[in-house]
Amino acid sequence: MEVTNSNFSEALPQIQEAIERCTFMAVDCEFTGLNITRNINALDTPQEYYQKVRRNCKEFLIIQYGLCTFRYDAESNTFKKKDFNFYIFRRPVNKNVPDQRFLCQTSSIHFLVNESFDFNKLFKEGISYLNKEDIEKYKDAVEESYKRRSDLIQSQQNSTNESIPIPENAKGFIDDVIGQLGEFIKSDKDELELPRCNAFYRRLVYQTKSEKFPDNISIETRQINKDRILFATKFKNKEKEEEAERNKYNKDLKELDDHIGFSKVIQMIINSRKLVVGHNICLDLLHTIDKFLMALPEDYYDFKGMAHDLFPKILDTKYLSSCEPFKDIITSNVLKHLYDTLSQEPFGIPTIETEDGVQGYTIGNIKEHEAGFDAYLTGVCFLAMWKYLGAAKKFDDTKTFSNFNLLEPYINRIFVMKLLDNQYINLGGKDLNPPRDHVFHLTFPKEWRANDISQLFSPFGNVYVSWIDETSAYVTLYKKDQAAKALNSLSNAESYKIMTYAKRKALLRGVSTPFSSPTVMKKRKSSEGPPSKRIKLDSSNNDSVLHPKRSIDSIEEEQLESENSQSSRSTTKAFIEDSSWE
Amino acid sequence: MEVTNSNFSEALPQIQEAIERCTFMAVDCEFTGLNITRNINALDTPQEYYQKVRRNCKEFLIIQYGLCTFRYDAESNTFKKKDFNFYIFRRPVNKNVPDQRFLCQTSSIHFLVNESFDFNKLFKEGISYLNKEDIEKYKDAVEESYKRRSDLIQSQQNSTNESIPIPENAKGFIDDVIGQLGEFIKSDKDELELPRCNAFYRRLVYQTKSEKFPDNISIETRQINKDRILFATKFKNKEKEEEAERNKYNKDLKELDDHIGFSKVIQMIINSRKLVVGHNICLDLLHTIDKFLMALPEDYYDFKGMAHDLFPKILDTKYLSSCEPFKDIITSNVLKHLYDTLSQEPFGIPTIETEDGVQGYTIGNIKEHEAGFDAYLTGVCFLAMWKYLGAAKKFDDTKTFSNFNLLEPYINRIFVMKLLDNQYINLGGKDLNPPRDHVFHLTFPKEWRANDISQLFSPFGNVYVSWIDETSAYVTLYKKDQAAKALNSLSNAESYKIMTYAKRKALLRGVSTPFSSPTVMKKRKSSEGPPSKRIKLDSSNNDSVLHPKRSIDSIEEEQLESENSQSSRSTTKAFIEDSSWE
Repeated sequence: MEVTNSNFSEALPQIQEAIERCTFMAVDCEFTGLNITRNINALDTPQEYYQKVRRNCKEFLIIQYGLCTFRYDAESNTFKKKDFNFYIFRRPVNKNVPDQRFLCQTSSIHFLVNESFDFNKLFKEGISYLNKEDIEKYKDAVEESYKRRSDLIQSQQNSTNESIPIPENAKGFIDDVIGQLGEFIKSDKDELELPRCNAFYRRLVYQTKSEKFPDNISIETRQINKDRILFATKFKNKEKEEEAERNKYNKDLKELDDHIGFSKVIQMIINSRKLVVGHNICLDLLHTIDKFLMALPEDYYDFKGMAHDLFPKILDTKYLSSCEPFKDIITSNVLKHLYDTLSQEPFGIPTIETEDGVQGYTIGNIKEHEAGFDAYLTGVCFLAMWKYLGAAKKFDDTKTFSNFNLLEPYINRIFVMKLLDNQYINLGGKDLNPPRDHVFHLTFPKEWRANDISQLFSPFGNVYVSWIDETSAYVTLYKKDQAAKALNSLSNAESYKIMTYAKRKALLRGVSTPFSSPTVMKKRKSSEGPPSKRIKLDSSNNDSVLHPKRSIDSIEEEQLESENSQSSRSTTKAFIEDSSWE
Repeated sequence: MEVTNSNFSEALPQIQEAIERCTFMAVDCEFTGLNITRNINALDTPQEYYQKVRRNCKEFLIIQYGLCTFRYDAESNTFKKKDFNFYIFRRPVNKNVPDQRFLCQTSSIHFLVNESFDFNKLFKEGISYLNKEDIEKYKDAVEESYKRRSDLIQSQQNSTNESIPIPENAKGFIDDVIGQLGEFIKSDKDELELPRCNAFYRRLVYQTKSEKFPDNISIETRQINKDRILFATKFKNKEKEEEAERNKYNKDLKELDDHIGFSKVIQMIINSRKLVVGHNICLDLLHTIDKFLMALPEDYYDFKGMAHDLFPKILDTKYLSSCEPFKDIITSNVLKHLYDTLSQEPFGIPTIETEDGVQGYTIGNIKEHEAGFDAYLTGVCFLAMWKYLGAAKKFDDTKTFSNFNLLEPYINRIFVMKLLDNQYINLGGKDLNPPRDHVFHLTFPKEWRANDISQLFSPFGNVYVSWIDETSAYVTLYKKDQAAKALNSLSNAESYKIMTYAKRKALLRGVSTPFSSPTVMKKRKSSEGPPSKRIKLDSSNNDSVLHPKRSIDSIEEEQLESENSQSSRSTTKAFIEDSSWE
């Protein structure tokens, strides 16, 4: 179901009902852009990653929100789904909410328009939204304005502005207004629109009114499109004025409620405390909080706490599909590829029907990259994997779908694009802290290319190069047990500097550890001895972290998927295809 | 005529011809937004104004460009016009040009979409553009890539990558590829698309090819949509390979030429050295330079020099209409109002026909805020004023329109919105430097409102308050001769600090003048004596600047026009309508 501003109020009860009845729901968002600069490093920690992505979230908008609810009907062993595709755009509100400036990324816009995204519909009929801070400020402004106007009625004070002489060239205009107001009093009309004029003339009109018609006319300025127009109305008694103010107050609150718009849907999802499924849900989650709830906290741990409180059960199908038992069977977990795999043996998709026979998305009518369709497809993929997990335990569908125990190992683990070390954001607990004894920080001349680095390390096997800037990179050894040997052999050189990952991080933190000192950035003194001797290497520990492992292949696929056609030196493989291959 | 990417090449010769034949041309642009923050102060100098607007230009895009050429046909005493409305959007180019990020202002987008601006057409069919820097970089990259590939052919070196062992789970895939390549050699096919795979697998395919088919197969990676696909072709001899490279080089240059797109039209306008007319042309001019030519210089005087070199004759109808002899007859110079006034007595619009009877905009079919229409309307308004200037000298039309002497006093003076003192950017010479002895810098408690300030100054008449921030503002006296008295009376106070405009500016420049010292920002020491005694006041000079004066009314109208509905304290009148008036 497509939801725009024109049918939003009408659709709201249906959405509420669908959320209340569902077993779980799937979500997906489309954005005006993804990143300001491509500054994610494959060796970022989840915390560093968050800091960078948070910045992007503040600049770009969500422009489409997909929500698909799935309700398990045990009797018929089918899932009943209901899909919603929301166009989201906050039109200019009023003086209570600032005029938004937002960033667009050309490649994202181009991508969407080629997927038939309708920007005219978005800008014309998008549903508004406010986050909690906006709502508070807006409400305060309405209250304050009501109080001020009420006080004014009580005091019955007129403006105490000093009277200013009417300039020669304005006299004709003012005389005309006096004439019109005089006739208006005698007429049976309720209000009179005065001729359009500038702020100075309006000032003169107010002044003239106070002088000539102090007790029988009220003047007010109304904003009509871009113009401010003066309207004269006949003076009301105090009770009538107060009633008019109360009506205006209620109208203002109603208007605020309209502007809250889509944020209400998010609040319904939060209130439900139900399982929310997304494919590569990280950006969707961050934007959802930022746009519809509150500013993303600066602190990563504050964010984790907040996100977990708001959404106690999240499942990321990108993470799930890259874990055991799926990682070896699923070669690509790009959403569409994932569906292709999951719709074939050894997988199977449970029966899914639209709730109440209402029309909706179908697999036969692919609308990839429409948020509502992608949410639907994500839910379908999730169901196939859930079913598979149950089948592995010889559960029948009813047993599988009647509780979430099977999903426990995967819940609240948010897939993070582009990071090495199988890392994810663990909303429900501690993040991984994988050993990085086989990672080095390298500084080198500007002329060096990936090939130079891989040649340097070639005696120790293949390496993964993650560029930091033109003259530095992190270098990860594939053969972890070669770390000590590599550091030892490569430490004495003029043309480049090498240091351990731990030392580099300590330097960045400004911490002085036994094996870190700013001087090692410069040329190492021979008296210091080879740093390798001071490094603890425990490669046996590398695989001992207890969590489902993702396949390297799927990570690489992701990295490719997320690459746009622009060349960039960040996170380039040492075996990068050189341009002669293109 | 509407011009998009699909008919641009075809339209280019017509555009060229229209520019070559015309007497003058009018232009207008639509943008994705106007300003990042509302930080223009009414007392900014043109230089300060430029610095602020330059920053805005870098963030927002031109999305529609209107060009209307007017050719005077003396024989029939008619103008022949030709109008073009260009949709402008640079789609993602390739690795040679970075993926653009641009800002949108919600109120601007909302305004445009309500004027029926077609964003889908823009994003799908917009004409591309590159500025000169982009073009240089792009060209260099094409040359360099050609050289590198040619060198590679010469050296016939194969990749020297270290051979890596093929992992168990990849063996099936690689064996399949070997089989396919073997059959391909025997076949009469020209090329073979290999199965989609990730970067690591592609690396293995290249390696396998080098080992198994070193002399009879070439492999290349092609970017197809978001995927990188491997293609095998049969090995060519050196001459064929060189020819293929030359063809690719020429294809690349052709592609570059396509991407230059709309920048060619701007170059045609520049080459013509003809009169360019715009209504409120400041932003159009700055964006035109920034987007299609080169980055706007940091230095204001560099900008003036550059703009004047590029466009030697600019006429701003907003400036013209606010000068003598128009300022007293024209009460509003918002473009549409301006046209309404100019189409009536005492004005008259010369006969205008479309060139060659081609269809185009007509006055009867208003398409306000479509760039092409606004350019056309601007030209029409300009013609009415030009005719009027001639008539005042008893010239007949032929004499009026046969030279530009009548326009001399107005040429190259760019109207600047929101500034006091009748200021404009004078591209052809020195800017005004109006005396500001009647302007004061005031620092006050956060609680103060406009009313408090106007009350403070009330003994000296009305004031104009231009807010700087919550606790400071410039205050301009309407009665200039009250300046010395005001400063004298108001200097000794605890709750606020007052200083002259000159002193404030000197402070900001960090210049120590006889009457400026950072300490005056703090509480003034009594030993210093009242600063007024050290101030030279010469109010008699205030009106002596020799330039056509703009009417205060039209300036105020502008300020209103440019106000959006958001409330802001910047450039608020002391007689601001309080909110009870709304």
